[in-house]
Amino acid sequence: MGLVVQKFGGTSVGDAERIRAVAEHIQRTVKAGNQVVVVVSAMGKTTDDLVRLSKEVSKVSVPREMDMLLTAGERISMALLCMALADLGIPAVSFTGSQAGIITDTDHTRAKILEVKGDRLRDALAEGKTPVVAGFQGVSTDNDVTTLGRGGSDTTAVALAAALGADYCEIYTDVTGVFNADPRIVPGAKRLDRISFEEMLEIAASGGRVLALRSAEFARNHNVELQVRSSFTWEPGTWVVREDPSMEQAIVSAVTHDVSEAKVTVSGVPDKPGIAAKLFRGLADRSINVDMIVQNTSVHGNTDISFTVPRDDLETSLAVAQGLLGELGATEVSADSEIARVSLVGAGMKTHPGVTAKVFEVLYAEGINIQMISTSSIRISCVIDKESTERAVRSLHSAFELSA
Amino acid sequence: MGLVVQKFGGTSVGDAERIRAVAEHIQRTVKAGNQVVVVVSAMGKTTDDLVRLSKEVSKVSVPREMDMLLTAGERISMALLCMALADLGIPAVSFTGSQAGIITDTDHTRAKILEVKGDRLRDALAEGKTPVVAGFQGVSTDNDVTTLGRGGSDTTAVALAAALGADYCEIYTDVTGVFNADPRIVPGAKRLDRISFEEMLEIAASGGRVLALRSAEFARNHNVELQVRSSFTWEPGTWVVREDPSMEQAIVSAVTHDVSEAKVTVSGVPDKPGIAAKLFRGLADRSINVDMIVQNTSVHGNTDISFTVPRDDLETSLAVAQGLLGELGATEVSADSEIARVSLVGAGMKTHPGVTAKVFEVLYAEGINIQMISTSSIRISCVIDKESTERAVRSLHSAFELSA
Repeated sequence: MGLVVQKFGGTSVGDAERIRAVAEHIQRTVKAGNQVVVVVSAMGKTTDDLVRLSKEVSKVSVPREMDMLLTAGERISMALLCMALADLGIPAVSFTGSQAGIITDTDHTRAKILEVKGDRLRDALAEGKTPVVAGFQGVSTDNDVTTLGRGGSDTTAVALAAALGADYCEIYTDVTGVFNADPRIVPGAKRLDRISFEEMLEIAASGGRVLALRSAEFARNHNVELQVRSSFTWEPGTWVVREDPSMEQAIVSAVTHDVSEAKVTVSGVPDKPGIAAKLFRGLADRSINVDMIVQNTSVHGNTDISFTVPRDDLETSLAVAQGLLGELGATEVSADSEIARVSLVGAGMKTHPGVTAKVFEVLYAEGINIQMISTSSIRISCVIDKESTERAVRSLHSAFELSA
Repeated sequence: MGLVVQKFGGTSVGDAERIRAVAEHIQRTVKAGNQVVVVVSAMGKTTDDLVRLSKEVSKVSVPREMDMLLTAGERISMALLCMALADLGIPAVSFTGSQAGIITDTDHTRAKILEVKGDRLRDALAEGKTPVVAGFQGVSTDNDVTTLGRGGSDTTAVALAAALGADYCEIYTDVTGVFNADPRIVPGAKRLDRISFEEMLEIAASGGRVLALRSAEFARNHNVELQVRSSFTWEPGTWVVREDPSMEQAIVSAVTHDVSEAKVTVSGVPDKPGIAAKLFRGLADRSINVDMIVQNTSVHGNTDISFTVPRDDLETSLAVAQGLLGELGATEVSADSEIARVSLVGAGMKTHPGVTAKVFEVLYAEGINIQMISTSSIRISCVIDKESTERAVRSLHSAFELSA
């Protein structure tokens, strides 16, 4: 009994049969006495197909039109889902991001939500109808259609749950929850029943693909409890909740890996104030999400700065760094896209300082060289060569006894 | 030099190559010094595919959601066209029906335009940009997405041309203009260079598929000059203009045919006032477009009423008539869906009374029985059996010497 936001990803609504299965699950949830607000992604590979079409049509990218194009996808899935619900006797009504009152900034293809109004959703609920909302999209302060970028539908779901005061938010996907390693790499990987927002954030930020980082952040900031679960088996999944001091804290919750990034190194940088600021302002102005940054203590007044960026942004990042070489007084820019980041995440790491040392020992025993290191209070990440990814993940998973 | 509305149908934007060809034509028009407002339909078979999907998902039809679904189609084509234009250095910006200010009533799947605001289109033109507008769609007074029904994109184009005070409106399609018979049936069919709004109206109403009836009506009522032409050959097509007394008026302009209707006959109807009103109010309340209506002088106080309806509406029409049998005091309802309507259209017919007689003679000579007759000042229509359609069209085309 309560108000639940249920979000269904692209594979969950991949074809007519899947859409009918989703409608039946929503029906079950409604029949159990809940009010449901549904958020849907575009069907299956729709978005990929539209991106491909855009490349056939034009060599230049027009962000406003790309958003207009891609938002067709959720329009299709949400209208079909409403029809399937009507077929089951559940009155449903679809809303675009704009109609749902999801107001964003004007940064097309990666807009940020500024406000969620949701008046029409509340009205629909009050009339006993189930609102089905297009994920991934909003309307800008300029009245143009925007998209929220990668993982945008999860963000829509969490933002709606926060705005409507939902009891919790369920993220339905094609896996049964959050695992303590990628099951394709580690056969003994275990599904986690319950993790904290902070762990989910670190897992999402370090390569766990189940939940997008932004939506995990949003959920933590607005204290929206999440359940990540499967729309194929419908079994209970992983709860992501506020950390409870009474919870038994595993020292290490998960091993994650990310092979989507590339490393950039700016060499021979004079060790004086303002250098890093210039470089990373230049990257930020191009909307590049820099991930890890490592700068060593200088030797002889010069130092190197290394950072990782999404591989898609490597070319732009190199151009920015190259363009600033003179201004920075640096000597050289180099790149390596054959890297991987392997991370260990666990809320209990805060109070167990030996974990870091053990990570290094395990990788050393495997003969894997560590190129960059970065840590937070509940995470350790190492950049290694891409080829060693699977060995690193398996050996860490085993060394920390994470198997089921 | 002027303001031109150019509308491109589904086959004109059927794939990436076609979209680029359309963009090049718009570029030519702009480079020639014109301002262009573009209206697009959904790509090729997109709408059919979406309708099919909706049937896979649900047995019930939900008009509001059907509109939400189908409007995804133009969203895709207009965004792609804007990208193709950007590629050619023509700044373009897409607008949904809602963004273009096309306000409709709330009759989903066949909404009527109440008002065209067009403020954002005027702003875009003032900024030197080419607006690309989604055809077929609007936003209702309830703020829901609506579609304008069959031929809706033509209506959008003409309505925009009227609202913006365009010099003329070009309807691009996959044929080179309006022909004086269907070239697939009559090999000698001739393209008309110039016809009056009234003739276009009668041609559209009697089966000529090139231009939708509603848009022809709208064009006449708002005096919007049209050119129907090909987006494959780009050659000059057929101008549809206000009738000019100095124009030489062909007695007969075209032979048209329509095999999309079915005939309903209500027999044994008492010949007293109010009967027809009851029957046709019942049909109108179900939004059925009744076309021809024939009622004979009564013999012995009873009469028969026959009418034609779109074949898709036959089942509903029969149910309505059957339900009213008692109230009407009629004896029987019967139907025939194997019919065709063959029509002769010509502005000069007004002053040449012999045309009707000649039509009957031609059909008689072919041994074709006439089931129903209806005439206007510039049109004669006969309902015949469907099998005789081609023979009827060919013999009339030949008898009235309409060959090229």
